[in-house]
Amino acid sequence: MDASSVAKPHDRLAAVLADDMAAVNALIRARMASEHAPRIPEVTAHLVEAGGKRLRPMLTLAAAKLCGYEGPDAVKLAATVEFIHTATLLHDDVVDESAQRRGRPTANLLWDNQSSVLVGDYLFSRSFQLMVETGSLRVLDILANASATIAEGEVLQLSAAQDLRTDESVYLKVVRGKTAALFSAACQVGGVISGAPEDRVQALFDYGDALGIAFQIADDLLDYQGDTAATGKNLGDDFRERKLTLPAIKAVALADAEERAFWQRTIEKGRQVDGDLDHALGLMRKHGTLEATRADADGWAARAQQALGALPDDPLRDMLSDLAGYVVARLS
Amino acid sequence: MDASSVAKPHDRLAAVLADDMAAVNALIRARMASEHAPRIPEVTAHLVEAGGKRLRPMLTLAAAKLCGYEGPDAVKLAATVEFIHTATLLHDDVVDESAQRRGRPTANLLWDNQSSVLVGDYLFSRSFQLMVETGSLRVLDILANASATIAEGEVLQLSAAQDLRTDESVYLKVVRGKTAALFSAACQVGGVISGAPEDRVQALFDYGDALGIAFQIADDLLDYQGDTAATGKNLGDDFRERKLTLPAIKAVALADAEERAFWQRTIEKGRQVDGDLDHALGLMRKHGTLEATRADADGWAARAQQALGALPDDPLRDMLSDLAGYVVARLS
Repeated sequence: MDASSVAKPHDRLAAVLADDMAAVNALIRARMASEHAPRIPEVTAHLVEAGGKRLRPMLTLAAAKLCGYEGPDAVKLAATVEFIHTATLLHDDVVDESAQRRGRPTANLLWDNQSSVLVGDYLFSRSFQLMVETGSLRVLDILANASATIAEGEVLQLSAAQDLRTDESVYLKVVRGKTAALFSAACQVGGVISGAPEDRVQALFDYGDALGIAFQIADDLLDYQGDTAATGKNLGDDFRERKLTLPAIKAVALADAEERAFWQRTIEKGRQVDGDLDHALGLMRKHGTLEATRADADGWAARAQQALGALPDDPLRDMLSDLAGYVVARLS
Repeated sequence: MDASSVAKPHDRLAAVLADDMAAVNALIRARMASEHAPRIPEVTAHLVEAGGKRLRPMLTLAAAKLCGYEGPDAVKLAATVEFIHTATLLHDDVVDESAQRRGRPTANLLWDNQSSVLVGDYLFSRSFQLMVETGSLRVLDILANASATIAEGEVLQLSAAQDLRTDESVYLKVVRGKTAALFSAACQVGGVISGAPEDRVQALFDYGDALGIAFQIADDLLDYQGDTAATGKNLGDDFRERKLTLPAIKAVALADAEERAFWQRTIEKGRQVDGDLDHALGLMRKHGTLEATRADADGWAARAQQALGALPDDPLRDMLSDLAGYVVARLS
């Protein structure tokens, strides 16, 4: 069976990296155990077994393989990255007061906010132990900086999301924090443990950064024009939750006085009534901001693909390139 | 003015370490800044400027000085330890739904739970960056393990605090997590960066571990017999919050059937009525558990003092010994 030419790039990566990903999953299960606190594996199993796409650990494995790495640390770092991701999901669900993630009830709903906060802390500590095991201070530096960028971006989002002064540059900082920082670090550490030359390490960072930004912009766009059945999210969740994302930010920037009053009422003051989402979508269509947002996502995907030029010509590189293309292709 | 013979050991330590502590405080202020998210310094300043006793960073500085260290890393590690402590306080206040800490409103009350969770994550990331700067993998290993023990202890407490099966060994695991793990790590890393011989590093760990346990047992005892004005806490808070601590655990272990039913109703089921706290105190007096708890605290303080025997004879060592004595002397 050769479906590689038609399968989604993510599935092709998963097939090529299957053995290493099995090792990553085994390591995750082993390290999320807790001798003393059975609540921990309960909460994490719920989240980890729900099986997200495991995109971040695959990026680490692919980056390391692409740079010729054969040792054991890529698997450790891939698990590290997934632990950090899972920890941020647990904390995000508390912050957003979410009731569902990946179509299942969130941990804070099944257990309580306390468990989500503390188990998140535990997973972050576990990730920290794993990366120390690699013995690479440079890897530790990269992941410490990524962690700070993630937390800073999340805090920034708290105040920026409902503030009409939030412009595209602030949005980009939030997106780098909430998504791109871990994508870029996941790619970069794969290169660093391989001992790859500096231009390749930089190319991996640039690829992950641009891929993460394209990914998040696409996600934010899908919230306004997605197929609810395919995304598992409700159309307009961000609007209802008063979260300014790129399509709305662009519409606010082009708003006349009356439109501005609409955004102030619905986003800043949160006084929404029936029909507001349709009106918001109408304003975005009027100003062409959905198309402009799509163009931005395309631009970041193209930057991700360009960055790969510094890396060895290899089927894995092609898959990473296709992945960047797919992130925006799913918008069509 | 020579008040050193009568001043509290903590104040004597603060006087001896004043220059280094000023550097620690300056570093904390510098590193809690955030270019992008002004909410971060607001929240942390509220907590950091409230000025706890800064006991943990002083332990790191004292341990390093006692081992002859003269370099810059002790200040960095002292700030690291205080950042970890502050991060756990922010998360604890969310978990406990606290309204006051150190006699001031908590950050989650002044801002929101979201800010407390995310700013805690930010401080933890900042601590991680600081420790990476020391370039010591052993220090990173110690602090990664301490972080995991802290988080595990906090999660364990969630399920153990209201479970009458919680015995003294489980209590000790919780106490090691919530208090002793950071005390012992704070002391140990001071020895490690000094390049101290292994028996001294171990002695510093043992001192911090026993000091932390004595400190937490004393704290839990003060909740049942403290002077409300001096502690700033209300008598019986732990009982009202259905949190089993050592005086109650010992009373449960000695309870007859009727007493056991009382503990089940008040702690496990949380159905408390007026007069229950007095009844609980009566049971603790009947079984002598307040005295027994005091004896345990004394025992751990003595172990802390014994551990210091492996360290150089020095006025700093005497202050650390006096500190262990003071932790339990405040119970009289």
